[in-house]
Formats: sequence, C-alpha cells, structure tokens
Amino acid sequence: MNLPLSSLMDLLDEPVPGVGTYEDFNTIDWVREKSKDRDRHREITSKSKESTWALVKSVSDAFSGWLLMLLIGLMSGALAGGIDISAHWMTDLKEGVCLNGFWFNHEHCCWTSNETTFQERDKCPQWKSWAELIIGTTEGPFAYIMNYLMYVCWALLFSFLAVSLVRAFAPYACGSGIPEIKTILSGFIIRGYLGKWTLLIKTVTLVLAVSSGLSLGKEGPLVHVACCCANILCHLFTKYRKNEAKRREVLSAAAAVGVSVAFGAPIGGVLFSLEEVSYYFPLKTLWRSFFAALVAAFTLRSINPFGNSRLVLFYVEFHTPWHLLELIPFILLGIFGGLWGAFFIRANIAWCRRRKTTWLGRYPVLEVLVVTAVTAVVAFPNSYTRTSTSELISELFNDCGLLDSSKLCNYDNANVTKSSNELPDRPAGADVYTAMWQLSLALVFKMLITVVTFGMKVPSGLFIPSLAVGAIAGRLLGIGMEQLAYYHHDWVIFRGWCSPGADCITPGLYAMVGAAACLGGVTRMTVSLVVIMFELTGGLEYIVPLMAAAMTSKWVADAIGRESIYEAHIRLNGYPFLEAKEEFSHKTLAMDVMRPRRSDPPLSVLTQDGMTVGDVESLITDTTYSGFPVVVSHESQRLVGFVLRRDLIISIDNARQRQDGIVSASRIFFTEYTPPQPPSSPPPLKLRGIMDLSPFTVTDLTAMDIVVDIFRKLGLRQCLITHNGRLLGIITKKDILKHVAQIANRDPDSILFN
Amino acid sequence: MNLPLSSLMDLLDEPVPGVGTYEDFNTIDWVREKSKDRDRHREITSKSKESTWALVKSVSDAFSGWLLMLLIGLMSGALAGGIDISAHWMTDLKEGVCLNGFWFNHEHCCWTSNETTFQERDKCPQWKSWAELIIGTTEGPFAYIMNYLMYVCWALLFSFLAVSLVRAFAPYACGSGIPEIKTILSGFIIRGYLGKWTLLIKTVTLVLAVSSGLSLGKEGPLVHVACCCANILCHLFTKYRKNEAKRREVLSAAAAVGVSVAFGAPIGGVLFSLEEVSYYFPLKTLWRSFFAALVAAFTLRSINPFGNSRLVLFYVEFHTPWHLLELIPFILLGIFGGLWGAFFIRANIAWCRRRKTTWLGRYPVLEVLVVTAVTAVVAFPNSYTRTSTSELISELFNDCGLLDSSKLCNYDNANVTKSSNELPDRPAGADVYTAMWQLSLALVFKMLITVVTFGMKVPSGLFIPSLAVGAIAGRLLGIGMEQLAYYHHDWVIFRGWCSPGADCITPGLYAMVGAAACLGGVTRMTVSLVVIMFELTGGLEYIVPLMAAAMTSKWVADAIGRESIYEAHIRLNGYPFLEAKEEFSHKTLAMDVMRPRRSDPPLSVLTQDGMTVGDVESLITDTTYSGFPVVVSHESQRLVGFVLRRDLIISIDNARQRQDGIVSASRIFFTEYTPPQPPSSPPPLKLRGIMDLSPFTVTDLTAMDIVVDIFRKLGLRQCLITHNGRLLGIITKKDILKHVAQIANRDPDSILFN
Repeated sequence: MNLPLSSLMDLLDEPVPGVGTYEDFNTIDWVREKSKDRDRHREITSKSKESTWALVKSVSDAFSGWLLMLLIGLMSGALAGGIDISAHWMTDLKEGVCLNGFWFNHEHCCWTSNETTFQERDKCPQWKSWAELIIGTTEGPFAYIMNYLMYVCWALLFSFLAVSLVRAFAPYACGSGIPEIKTILSGFIIRGYLGKWTLLIKTVTLVLAVSSGLSLGKEGPLVHVACCCANILCHLFTKYRKNEAKRREVLSAAAAVGVSVAFGAPIGGVLFSLEEVSYYFPLKTLWRSFFAALVAAFTLRSINPFGNSRLVLFYVEFHTPWHLLELIPFILLGIFGGLWGAFFIRANIAWCRRRKTTWLGRYPVLEVLVVTAVTAVVAFPNSYTRTSTSELISELFNDCGLLDSSKLCNYDNANVTKSSNELPDRPAGADVYTAMWQLSLALVFKMLITVVTFGMKVPSGLFIPSLAVGAIAGRLLGIGMEQLAYYHHDWVIFRGWCSPGADCITPGLYAMVGAAACLGGVTRMTVSLVVIMFELTGGLEYIVPLMAAAMTSKWVADAIGRESIYEAHIRLNGYPFLEAKEEFSHKTLAMDVMRPRRSDPPLSVLTQDGMTVGDVESLITDTTYSGFPVVVSHESQRLVGFVLRRDLIISIDNARQRQDGIVSASRIFFTEYTPPQPPSSPPPLKLRGIMDLSPFTVTDLTAMDIVVDIFRKLGLRQCLITHNGRLLGIITKKDILKHVAQIANRDPDSILFN
Repeated sequence: MNLPLSSLMDLLDEPVPGVGTYEDFNTIDWVREKSKDRDRHREITSKSKESTWALVKSVSDAFSGWLLMLLIGLMSGALAGGIDISAHWMTDLKEGVCLNGFWFNHEHCCWTSNETTFQERDKCPQWKSWAELIIGTTEGPFAYIMNYLMYVCWALLFSFLAVSLVRAFAPYACGSGIPEIKTILSGFIIRGYLGKWTLLIKTVTLVLAVSSGLSLGKEGPLVHVACCCANILCHLFTKYRKNEAKRREVLSAAAAVGVSVAFGAPIGGVLFSLEEVSYYFPLKTLWRSFFAALVAAFTLRSINPFGNSRLVLFYVEFHTPWHLLELIPFILLGIFGGLWGAFFIRANIAWCRRRKTTWLGRYPVLEVLVVTAVTAVVAFPNSYTRTSTSELISELFNDCGLLDSSKLCNYDNANVTKSSNELPDRPAGADVYTAMWQLSLALVFKMLITVVTFGMKVPSGLFIPSLAVGAIAGRLLGIGMEQLAYYHHDWVIFRGWCSPGADCITPGLYAMVGAAACLGGVTRMTVSLVVIMFELTGGLEYIVPLMAAAMTSKWVADAIGRESIYEAHIRLNGYPFLEAKEEFSHKTLAMDVMRPRRSDPPLSVLTQDGMTVGDVESLITDTTYSGFPVVVSHESQRLVGFVLRRDLIISIDNARQRQDGIVSASRIFFTEYTPPQPPSSPPPLKLRGIMDLSPFTVTDLTAMDIVVDIFRKLGLRQCLITHNGRLLGIITKKDILKHVAQIANRDPDSILFN
C-alpha cells in the first residue's frame, strides 16, 4: 500500500524514539546538544507570548537552573555532614566506646561529661578504651596489645565491608572518581557512573574506608558524591534530563560543590572546577556554581560536624608575618613537593598498571585487606599515624600557644612572660625531638603506603594524604629553621629580623606551605590550590609563600612529567579525553591524520539519492564506523551531510516495522524533494531528517594544531576533510587521541573508546 | 630578464614585510595568530636541541612570560601607589595647606605634629585652611566663603588641566577605558590606545580628575593604566611584540592587575578579568594573571599609600553575625541596586548620545568646567560630599565603635558598659538624624551628577560613584532598621533574635550590601563582585548577604535591560564586539546572513590560475572587501583558499618593485606548481605563500547560532559558506554584528568598523 505523501511526511516528522541519543562509552556531540537546547529554549520563548500558562512555564524554566543548584547544594552539604560525623565516630570506635551511648564519638562523649578538665579535654571516665572495657585496665603491655588488636580488627572489618560492598553493588564507586568525572565532563558517556547505586554505596563505603585508617581522604570522593547528587536531581527537570550538554554544565557546578564541602572553600571549589575538572564552563555556570557551593558550605556549617561552627576543616591563625628570606625554605619545600608529586605519579601508575596486568588484579578484596592490615599494624604504635590524617594535619598546621598540650608544642617556656600574646622563639623540649622522630617515620610510611593505596577497589581521595606528606615535611623543616634561628641568631641570614626574644619563625606556616607544595605536585593545581589554602587561613598575608611553593612545585614536577595524577589515570584507563591544557605542538597536517590512509580502501560514503535500503544495510554490517558522510555522487564527492550509524539503524528498523512497503529495494533519499518514483518500484525512504546538514569540514592542508583547537573548543566528535571542495576523508576524536599517543611514543591502541 | 626558478623561489620564500599584519580599526584573526605562535614555538623547541645557546634561548623564552608579568605587576603597583598618594594630597589641597611642607597631605601633616590628640586626629595647628592662611581666621561667614571659593577654584583648575591635557596630548585617555579594552581583547586593533602617551596623560589627568572632586573613581582608569603598562612592556619581548593573540593574553592579565591594585583584591581582580573583560582566557593566563595581580598588590602595599599597611581600600571588621530575616532588607537593597543600575545605564547612554549628536560635543572643556563647578558648589556645604568619595564609603562601611567621632556614630551610650567589646543597639542621637538628612541629599546629588559625569573627556571610573550611591542607600536603610529594632523589639519580626541590649543590626553591613547591589546593577558583575567585596571584609560570614543582593540586583537590572554599562558604551561607539554572554536565539540560517544576498552581484572571487596581475588589481580597486576566496575555476566554484586584500596589495606592489618582469599581463598562480609558460609571456607571479590554505567553511544550512558560536570560540574574522561543496558566499564578523543589531531592531549601520 502506498501512503499518500502528506501522511508519509507526518510519519517522518515526528521524531523516531532513540534518534539523537548516545550509546554507552561514546562521545557526545556538543554542537548538536547545544543546538538542541537552543531550539527548545526558542520554542518556549515563542510560546510564552501566547498564554499566561506558557509564560509561567517559561519563567519556571528560566529559574529551574537555580532551583536545581539549590537542591544540589542542600543535598551535597547534608551528605558531606553525615559522612563527616559518621567517619569521626567510626574512627574513634577503633580505639574505644562511650558508656553514655555508643553513638557518641570520643570528643562528644567527653563534652557531655562534667568531670573533664580544660587541660585534658580528651580524657573522661565515660570514654573507655577497648582494653579497659574488656580486661578492666589501661596499664601494662597486655592492655596495649589488646587495644592494638582491636584497632587492627576494626580496621580490617571496615575495609572488608567497604571493598565487599563496592564489588557487590557498585563497581564504579571505587577510586577518587575525578579522572572519570573529567572524562564525563569532556563529553563521554559512562552509564551508571553517576547513578543512585553509586551514590549510595560510595557514601557508605567512603565512611568505612576513611574510618579503616587507610591512607586516603574523602575529598576526591566527595566530588564524585556531589556529581551523583547533581545527576540524580537532573532527572527532575526535563531541560537537564534530556540534554547531555546542559547536564554537564550542572555537573561542573557539582564538582565545585564537592570541593566546597570538602574544604569549606566555596571560591576555591569554583576555581577547582574551572581549572581542573571542567571542559565547557560558560560564565553562567560560574555564577551558578558559586551559588551552589555557598549553599552547600552553609548547609554543612549548620550541621556543624566539627563542632566548632567553622566552615573550614583546618582553621589556622598565625600571629607572625613572614620574612622575605624565608622564601628560600619555602622554595625548598616547593622543590620537595614537586619531586614527591612526580615520584608518586610514576610509582602509583606503575603499581596500577601491575594491578591491571598481573594476578594482583584478580584478588581485590585480599589486596585491600593486606594493605589495611599493614597500615593498621604500622600505624598504631606511632601516635601521629594512629589518629585520623585530618587531625594530624590540623595539629601540624597549628601555631603553638602556651596552653597547647601537644608534644609538638613542648617548648622551654622559662623566659616567657605569661601575659604577652606573642610567643617568642624558644628552645625545643625533649618531646619535640621525640615528635620529630615519629614524624619522620610517619613521613616515610605515608609516602610508601599511599602509593599502593590509591587505586584500590575502595573510595579513595588523594588530597588528604598529599597534604599530610607535605605538612609533615614542612613542619620538620619549620622546627629545624626555628631552632637554627634560636641558637644561631647571630648568623648573617638571621641578623636584623630574628633577634632573641622575637617570634620570627612559625613552624605551622611551613607545614601549610609544604602541604600546598605536595598537593600541587600531585594534582598540578595552581590558582585553585592557592585560593583553597587562602580560604583555610583567611589572610592575604600568607598567599605569597603559598604561591612561591606552588609555582616551584609545579615547575619541578612538570619538568619530570607533564601529567597530573588524574590525567595519568585517564590515560591508564584509555578514556577518550582531549587535554585542553597541553598545546599540540607537532607540525602535521589534517591529511596525515585523517582516515582513510593512502593505502586503505576509500572512505565509505552514502550518496544522496543513489542507494537502496539493502545497500545501506550491507554497508552498515560490513563496516564499524559510527557515521557516514553523504555525498552528491561517488564521482563528484561533493559533501551534502553526515549521518550517524546509530540513527541510520534505528530509522531503517523503524521504517521497516511501521512504514508499509519498505523493503531492501526501496531507495533512500537524503534530498529535500523526492523525484516521482515509477509505479512498480517500492516506496522510497526519506531520511533527510536524520542527516546533519551542517557537518564540520576543514581542508586537507589545515595544520593539526588548528584541528585540535577546533575539536576542543567546539566539542566535536568528527570532522570531515575536503580538498578543493571534494570530500577526502574524516578525522574523529579517537584518531586525534591516537595521533597524540603516537607522537608521544605511546601505544596508540591504548585509547579504548569512541 | 627571466630569473631561474630556484632564485625566484628564494625571493618568494622570504616573507614580504607587512604581510600578516593588520590595519588600524580592524579585527585580528585569532586562529592565524595562534598558529603563528605555535610555529615560532616549534622552531625554538627544535633548535634548542642543537646548541647550548639555543637551549638557553628556549628556556628564557619560556620564562619571558613570567618575567613580563613580574614587570607589569611592579610597574602597575608603583603607578597605582603614586596615583593614590598624589590624589590624596591634591584632594586635601582644595581645603588647605600644611605649614611643615606643602607636600604633606592633611593626615600626614598632623601625624608629624606632636600637638595632635587621639580624639581629634585631623586637627593640628600645622594644617591651615585657606581662610586661616589668607585672612587669619576660621570663624565667621567670611572665612567660610573664603574656603568655599578656594575649594571651587582648585576644583576648576584641576579639571581644566585634566581636560586640556587629554585634548592636547592623548584623546584616548578619557573615560574609563574598559569598553575599549574589552573590544581590544576581543581582537580589535586601536593603535595608540595603549601607548605611552596615553599612559602618561591618563596617569596625570586621573590624579587631577579625582582631586577635582568630580563624581568619578580611579578604578576603571587603573585597569586602562595597567593595560598600557602591559602593552608597553610587551615591546621588550619579541614573543609578545609580534603576536597580537599573545599580547592579548598579557592584556587580560593586566586587567586583573588593574582591579587588584584598585581594590587590593588579587583574586577578585583575576575573576573580574575572566568574567567581565577577557575574551580568550586560557588557564595558563589565569595562573599568570594571579601572579601579576599578587605582585602588584604587594608592591602597592609596600608603598603603603593609605598609611595603614592594609592591602585594601576599605578595611571592614564587623562583630555581629546577621540574622536570616535580614535577608529581606538585603534583597530590597538588591532591588534598589538593580533599578538604579538600569536607570543609570539608560540615562547615561541617552546623555552620551546627546553629546555625540548635538552642540554639546563641540565644547568638551566648557562641559567639564560647568559640571565641575556645579559639583563643587553643591558638594562643599554638605560634609559627606565635600570629602573624597572613597573616604565617604569608608565611613559608611564602618561599624561604630565607642570612640568613633563620626556624626554617624553619635548614639546615646547611656546604657553601655565601657568594658564590653560588643556594643548593643542604641537609640540614635541628634547628629545621626542630621547625618541622615545630609546623606539623603548626597544620595540624590550623586545619582544625578554621576549620569552627566561618566563619559566626559576626562578619565573617569564608575566603581566608586556606584559604590557610594549604594553605600548611602544601604546605610540609611541600616540605621532605619536599627532604630526600628531598638524601639520595636517586641514586634514579631524582631522577637527572638533582637532583644533589648543585643547588638543585632550592623548599619555598616547594610551599606556594604547596598554598595555591592548598586555596583552589580551597573556593571552586571557576579562572582567577581562578591569576591572583591569578600576580599574587602575577609570573612566568609558576609558572603551570603552580598550574594543575595548581587543576585537580586542582576535579575532586576537584566529584566529592564540586558546590557551592562560597558556593553552599552561599546554599542554606542559601534565597536565590533561579539558578546559572548548573550545566547544567539534566532532561528536563521547561514544562507540568510551571508553575502552576496540573492539580489546582489555574485561573490568576487579569484581563480587559482586564471587571472593576471591587471585583473586582480582592477578587482581590488573596484571592491572594498577585505579578502577574496580563491576557487579552482569560476564554473566549478570549488574552494581552494582565502587571500586577504592587504596581503594581496602588499605582495603585488612588492613584486612589481623587486621582481623583474612583473607587469599587468603577468599571470598570478595560487597553485603549488606553475605550469611552464610560453616564452613570450611575462614571468608568472606565485602567490600561494600568502593564501590561507585552511579557510573556515560551513554549509549554507548551518544554523546561525552554531555559526556565531564558531566565530566566538575560534575568534574568526570571516567564514565561507558552501552548498554541496560549491562556494556560495561569505559571512564576516561585521555581517553577524549587523544581523544581531537588525534582530534587536537597532540600526545595523551602527556597527562602524571591520
């Protein structure tokens, strides 16, 4: 039966379900997505003039972005608060339990107690260590061994639960998630990576992993958690549910939210998202991210998980300005940070590659248990590794006051007048030297164990361990400098600014600078790093030391290897990520990169009116290309448009099922007008609707650096190559990534996905 | 004489001077400039392996960017310090002179005096008002008139000098400069706008204009000054001197430096540059701008122009947290700011258009003198307008302490215990009510006079007047709220958080929020505005009120008119600026915008081998197009490349002068190989070298929103339109701007430049 032309047109005008969507592990076409969104927006705007209801809808559409941001901020802030509180409680559970109620953590338990003195806030009768509870005493070697055992057992239990939950329910919940989020934001599709199961399991296992005492942090995973929240909340709004590009704008904002709740640094979070994670970050998103980051930070603050009404994780207040000469040790810390960053990336990638290729990868649960056991066994005897890493960092950043009971603050206070607010440099007491030994051991241990920990099948962030390594190194150098200045204040370098009785060196500041340097070396963050650290201290005064260290660290690390840890992991996993920071500096032309190569068979093309359904179907089965150019004729090779394989398959299948008379001999037309068919022939299939009428083209003599620039800036999937107006070949994102890998002497087949 | 082919090739291989440069008032081609820089970089990198000297050169090339940033930071910081000090001194000179030395300003004069009490720091015998100096008394109406007269005379003298210097030496030195810098950064060329004369005159006249008491600030002009510094310093480095794109990266950083020194807010400055000014802002530039902004801020701080060792212009310290209910007045301030911003932009643009079109524009000196006279005459009797605007803002932001002698702090302190640090809300004294009257008058006056001041032929910034208007409105509302809460603390809205004796409302915070709202309404800044205000207070606590006000203000102002004051001025002057923030939302296709239109004569093209020198020369004289596509033949219309008019003229002139035998009958070849010529014919001219082999093309069915996106993101000058592989037409940036103007029902001929 031949349908009349008008009804045929109607049939084809309504979109076939599935056309315009993407398969898993494929790259989206940013231009098409943004164009779709503009069409949608245009439609709403033009309708809004017709009726009041449409106007209300148009206004609510305009504000839905803000509402979504508000919801993301609230949800992420609440989750982060929950994670903080649970992790704190479970970390303390490894050491003991509160008799007033097992749900109190150590600090909270002793707050509620009346018998606590100010001096020893963390000792109260209600808090029982495990030895005390089981064998009734805290003294003697037996009690120590008891506590030791319980500590290791709890750690093993937590990490076993974490790895089992991840393996059983949500394999995507492991790791930091930042490399994958970077890839997703650049336009890749990984279904389920930001789903509700991942969110649930990642939240629970993150608490378990942090509490188990492994050398990992919660900052990277919090970014993943915030992105999951955003992705789930996007489903409430059609605007974001249906458009991959718009959803990625929201995810960019969510990345900012993640860092904002991790550090209580909303501005730093936005800059982190802009600098490190995002691919397409329009100014509108900047403003919205800032809003979401603020909402999240204030939600977290009203939950008040640290019990100090502070927004920030480590609140620091220094009293002494720094001297210009101190830039030398700060730059030394920068060099240390850069070296450590480069070493860590190499060692970690080598270890992860070994995990991927050898038997190690087959026993992830065992691996986690062994690492946890080693960590717990080594960590317990040293008080600086026994506590949680964030407490350690907090103590290292701290500027010693007179009342501080920490070992690091055991100075000889003989010559100090109690009244003065400013403490001069003093000789270190015995405890400080003990602490320095313990810190040195902790430094070596942290450096080694972090290499094997990052990348295991549990949620694991890298910020806190990196900060810890740097803070330890910085504090050690700081104490060294301080004592040097105290005992040798007559040396030329100290003369004039560090006379006896003056407070000239703050070891806490050195710890902070060292922490920034190490984090910078690993992640290669720049502005965002300095701003996050600035938001921790709140004083512009200390930006210059931080900046000096961060700059040195980045230069040193870049001189050894250009990639940050996230980029290295992206490459390790073969994700199709086109790095925006790296300049493409080789002098190749588009014709050297395009397919087909000179020896290959010619490019598979469709003609606009010369092929039948059968021809096209056999072309589809014979090739694996994800799209085909449409030309006027094989002879002229003049380009008309581009059709995606997926759309072609769906449309032909749909036509065969729903449209009468479509058989293999039906001719396919991509032209605007179908010429009248002879009455004996089957009805034609019009597919102009699925053809991209504006495919991107460049000439064969275009320099590849320009082509790469176009791909990055416009977010293309493919680009067609012409010579004097004739179609010659095609370049896809994968071709570019393979070419880049080849130039860098890497295996071009390491790029796995389209 | 026929040259042998090889020497002919040599002759053509060396670049003809002038090819690849731009004329004044033209748009650069970002793709070509960036490609040129990559070529240069590649050359240096490949040479660096050959010798040690080349390696040193390569390293110094890599670090030259950082060195340049350091120099810009130092120079801009020093200039800003000089401007601050001079303006401060000259502002005080209007009121009196120091007997210890005329070069001391009022504050400095009384510092050096021993007879100053703490209570009245600004009264000392060494500082003589003009009346005291001339007629020997400060009492009585005659002395008042004397001072009044001197005040007006000095103001007139300063403004006369400013406008005369600008007119005589550097007409580009007038205005704020931000609209022009935005246009330059987007790729436009205005020779001399950032030259040394402009720098010198702008620096001097800025001091004069600020000191004259006109309602203008130094913030915008400081951005211009920093950009001039950057442009001049660029000449020291070949890398930046010769490349328009690279130089614009440096200028983006300089814009950040300008705001950094204006407000002592380095992070805010970088975000301002990113959000408001820059067009192409790669991440590398972000980091470098931050470095330059820090260097400048610390240079300024070591000059210490405010005498308080503070980095910031208005240092504020509030003691009371805000209550959630206070968001209502904050949002009211946001609405006020938005309304004022929208009103100001309309009124100012209408006034500037009148200046452009009527007799007003012919007497700029007279205009400045009249406005100065009116300003001075009205300002003197009101103590809030007599002082400099930044002092006024500082006083309005201030949280009243017990010792403050300001009229705004004249509260009834009967019930206050002197010891407590926190001051409860108190009933206002009589002086506060006087101050409120004066402030109301000042508000109306500032609002009106700023409209006519901005855009006169003197350097004038808009930040400070906008902040002042908002701060006055905010302070008035704040005092109102405070008194309301004091006298009616039993009202439902105050109950629970504002009991008697509590310090619940801080009028200074209201002033700050109002200032942010007004600045936001005028400039439509978002993140950068909040961050700048945050850097002024240094506490995350007050970000939420600022954000609420800034958001409301932007929404209200955007609902009335989409353009910021800078964009409005860009449009008024007809600069070719393609707005990156505004979405292009019309459903036109490339074929609707391209030239030639249907009724026009066909596109002027060159053929790759069929034209003579004479043909091309007559085409050049007959048309005014800035470039011509090159096609295979007129029949096929298959595109080969694109040649710029300027390059074509230079090359032909050069060949006629330097190459023997080139006459009008010589054939021009754009092909790779020249076919052998018959011996009788003149030698051919090979011009493939000046042809762009990779011109951008899109199909005629491409939606205009995609085309606009490509233009913005890649920074194109023109794009060729094809249909099924045949060349059809061309779209230039000017065509797009004209099209946008047409859609918005504006005169498309208002776009003046190419």
